Amino acid sequence: MPTKVTVWNENRHEQQDEQAREVYPDGIHTAIAEALDSKDYDVRTATLDEPEHGLSEEVLDDTDVLIWWSHIANDEVKDEVVDRVISRIHNGMGFIPLHSARGSKVFKRLMGTSTRIKWRHDDRERLWVVDPSHPIADGIEEYVEIPEEEMYGEPQNIPKPDEIVFIGWFAGGEVLRSGCCYKRGKGRIFYFQPGHEEYPIYYQDEIRRIITNATEWATPLEGVTATYGNTKALE
Amino acid sequence: MPTKVTVWNENRHEQQDEQAREVYPDGIHTAIAEALDSKDYDVRTATLDEPEHGLSEEVLDDTDVLIWWSHIANDEVKDEVVDRVISRIHNGMGFIPLHSARGSKVFKRLMGTSTRIKWRHDDRERLWVVDPSHPIADGIEEYVEIPEEEMYGEPQNIPKPDEIVFIGWFAGGEVLRSGCCYKRGKGRIFYFQPGHEEYPIYYQDEIRRIITNATEWATPLEGVTATYGNTKALE
Amino acid sequence: MPTKVTVWNENRHEQQDEQAREVYPDGIHTAIAEALDSKDYDVRTATLDEPEHGLSEEVLDDTDVLIWWSHIANDEVKDEVVDRVISRIHNGMGFIPLHSARGSKVFKRLMGTSTRIKWRHDDRERLWVVDPSHPIADGIEEYVEIPEEEMYGEPQNIPKPDEIVFIGWFAGGEVLRSGCCYKRGKGRIFYFQPGHEEYPIYYQDEIRRIITNATEWATPLEGVTATYGNTKALE
Amino acid sequence: MPTKVTVWNENRHEQQDEQAREVYPDGIHTAIAEALDSKDYDVRTATLDEPEHGLSEEVLDDTDVLIWWSHIANDEVKDEVVDRVISRIHNGMGFIPLHSARGSKVFKRLMGTSTRIKWRHDDRERLWVVDPSHPIADGIEEYVEIPEEEMYGEPQNIPKPDEIVFIGWFAGGEVLRSGCCYKRGKGRIFYFQPGHEEYPIYYQDEIRRIITNATEWATPLEGVTATYGNTKALE
Repeated sequence: MPTKVTVWNENRHEQQDEQAREVYPDGIHTAIAEALDSKDYDVRTATLDEPEHGLSEEVLDDTDVLIWWSHIANDEVKDEVVDRVISRIHNGMGFIPLHSARGSKVFKRLMGTSTRIKWRHDDRERLWVVDPSHPIADGIEEYVEIPEEEMYGEPQNIPKPDEIVFIGWFAGGEVLRSGCCYKRGKGRIFYFQPGHEEYPIYYQDEIRRIITNATEWATPLEGVTATYGNTKALE
Repeated sequence: MPTKVTVWNENRHEQQDEQAREVYPDGIHTAIAEALDSKDYDVRTATLDEPEHGLSEEVLDDTDVLIWWSHIANDEVKDEVVDRVISRIHNGMGFIPLHSARGSKVFKRLMGTSTRIKWRHDDRERLWVVDPSHPIADGIEEYVEIPEEEMYGEPQNIPKPDEIVFIGWFAGGEVLRSGCCYKRGKGRIFYFQPGHEEYPIYYQDEIRRIITNATEWATPLEGVTATYGNTKALE
Repeated sequence: MPTKVTVWNENRHEQQDEQAREVYPDGIHTAIAEALDSKDYDVRTATLDEPEHGLSEEVLDDTDVLIWWSHIANDEVKDEVVDRVISRIHNGMGFIPLHSARGSKVFKRLMGTSTRIKWRHDDRERLWVVDPSHPIADGIEEYVEIPEEEMYGEPQNIPKPDEIVFIGWFAGGEVLRSGCCYKRGKGRIFYFQPGHEEYPIYYQDEIRRIITNATEWATPLEGVTATYGNTKALE
Repeated sequence: MPTKVTVWNENRHEQQDEQAREVYPDGIHTAIAEALDSKDYDVRTATLDEPEHGLSEEVLDDTDVLIWWSHIANDEVKDEVVDRVISRIHNGMGFIPLHSARGSKVFKRLMGTSTRIKWRHDDRERLWVVDPSHPIADGIEEYVEIPEEEMYGEPQNIPKPDEIVFIGWFAGGEVLRSGCCYKRGKGRIFYFQPGHEEYPIYYQDEIRRIITNATEWATPLEGVTATYGNTKALE
């Protein structure tokens, strides 16, 4: 059965900012959905301005992995939908917040920190692999050049990642743990930093490969069902 | 300058349950405050029914490490106070939730998971050290016998701990990662499972030593101040 | 292409000890090879008394995952073969040392510690899952009963595992981090404690499932090739 | 009782290379010993060409933390001394390998990997703190400028660190996990990358502060004594 992926995007920059619209005329979500084409995934998209932000109970129950891009409208996402998304992640749905989605309500609540960083437009990044046998880095080279990117710099305010796959080097002098794995409940989470809305980063082959790998990695297994609450002694 | 410790307790079982009152006539908070006597700490206590739960801005600003026991009244803690406590932890205050305080709003929000477990009264625990050179285990033996304890069992729903210091063995057949270290922002967090309200666990020498060690470990350092937001290039 | 698995066994207890011979008349290696039958792996076995211990350069180059059982003859394994095995692991071969193979030269050199434990015959174990969405635990229940097992107990002398999948409860009162993941170079390593030679543990369905899962997990990917040595500036 | 520190240096570059001799006329060990002056440590030095490399059983038994600089003579260190040093680390002695000491026999054996990197002379580094409340980073700023440094770049071949305190940015385009914590047995290990022999890095205040902090962090505690071998049941 193919992995069911929902690519969610607030889709605001593409309406409001000329440069974002030029780069992503059909929205970042469409570019990311295309990025998954090399695999036989079952991909749909959803955006902020749809009813329930396109994330009804029904849609989420039918989603294995949720990819999420957001920025200026992070606070417009309804708490009810946030609760629903988090509940699904705890029950096993994979979650891949991209770039400024680090500031989303969902990611902040999963992390328990402010997730703050330093940032600067008009920089450039070289993304280094630091875990060469990690499935999310499979099939790429030692590093990926991103000719134009917003800088996000350390010390970023995140919990210690379970695994660090990439570290970013920025021309302006900063570094970032740019690809970080977590689990919350049964859900696998991969925060991936690249993807400022004004640059064609989600068209790059290596970035597409990484997001595709991450989707595979985050796909839920059957897994083990934990019993909570009052239980009888086994002895 | 001595470490400033605030021991917080909801202090309800001790009012309502005869057995808890017998074991802790002055409240669990008082027993824990006494536990810290071997060190020259500056210790105060605070409880749920005080104004602002005894956790005013002023008190928290004057607290290096907050020890927290709670259970049946977890949901009565005001969100405003929860926000304040979390903000202080992010800024460096140590936090030591004990036993059923795993279900407190503060701990759940720091973890980003449900923190659920399996449980059962009338069990008994042997607490094994698995990190023999960890400062929180310093000065105790390989294991600590807890003659009466409520069972808390795996798989518990927590993020992967940064460090695991203790694993509990229960007579009824379960195990638990019983002493777990985390950081959120600059704050150090040590979840420590022992301490059901009906048993005299907080009078045990080894348990007192562990809580004292944890307080030392969680005491904030000057640390490094991160700059967030828009920053100039360094190159 | 099917994963190529070599199951290595020192195969001495089965020659020397009546009870081991009764339980594993064809050797532990044969039982483990059969355990992998549910998958379409390409499985071979090798034993200590073969030339080069059955682990020639050719065999190792043709091995994706090496499963290893050893105990009383740990010191008879030639250093030349040990070097060869470690080199292959560094280059990506998976490695699954079982039970007393924790004392093998290969595992000790990969860990950099003594790997010592406490132990006792004639015990019994309940293996708890502590990472319910880990692929190595996929498809089993919350715990596995092992009716007869040698006790291995904490504090065991190992480096902090990258991931802990199982914690063992022993009837005699001990606990053990019983399923531990590591990486060394590009190679994935899963130490799995169950499997004393006198008990039919490797015939148990759940144990077979776990070893099969671990083999899948340890199968090398293409991965990223690191460049070492003197390199030109990229800027 | 003051922490007893032994600073070990192969002390060869300072004899053979004019530039190293100019920068460190009394040897790197002397500069590092001076670096610890802000604390009331009991510091001695030892070098390769002394009998037993200055690391007799007696000296090691009297050492709490061993700081180690080495490079071109890594292979001249006698295995007998290597064994002795590793044994002491396993029993609790702190160990701080600096820069090219990543290639030392001791560090490689503790890590179980090749510890290889990419490298290049004539670069420059900015060392970023990524764990702002870690005691090893205490009292310094967000980053440390190192005006001249040899580049060491990812993906470096090391096990996953228990903690990452610093990540280095290099002007030539690389990054490195530059300050990494491990434990082996009871011993705490901090690998710290800065310190090419031709640059006055060990005279820099921040670098001295970091090495001093690391020495404090690596100082052994009483700790917990593990019992290994055949033990009686507790139940």
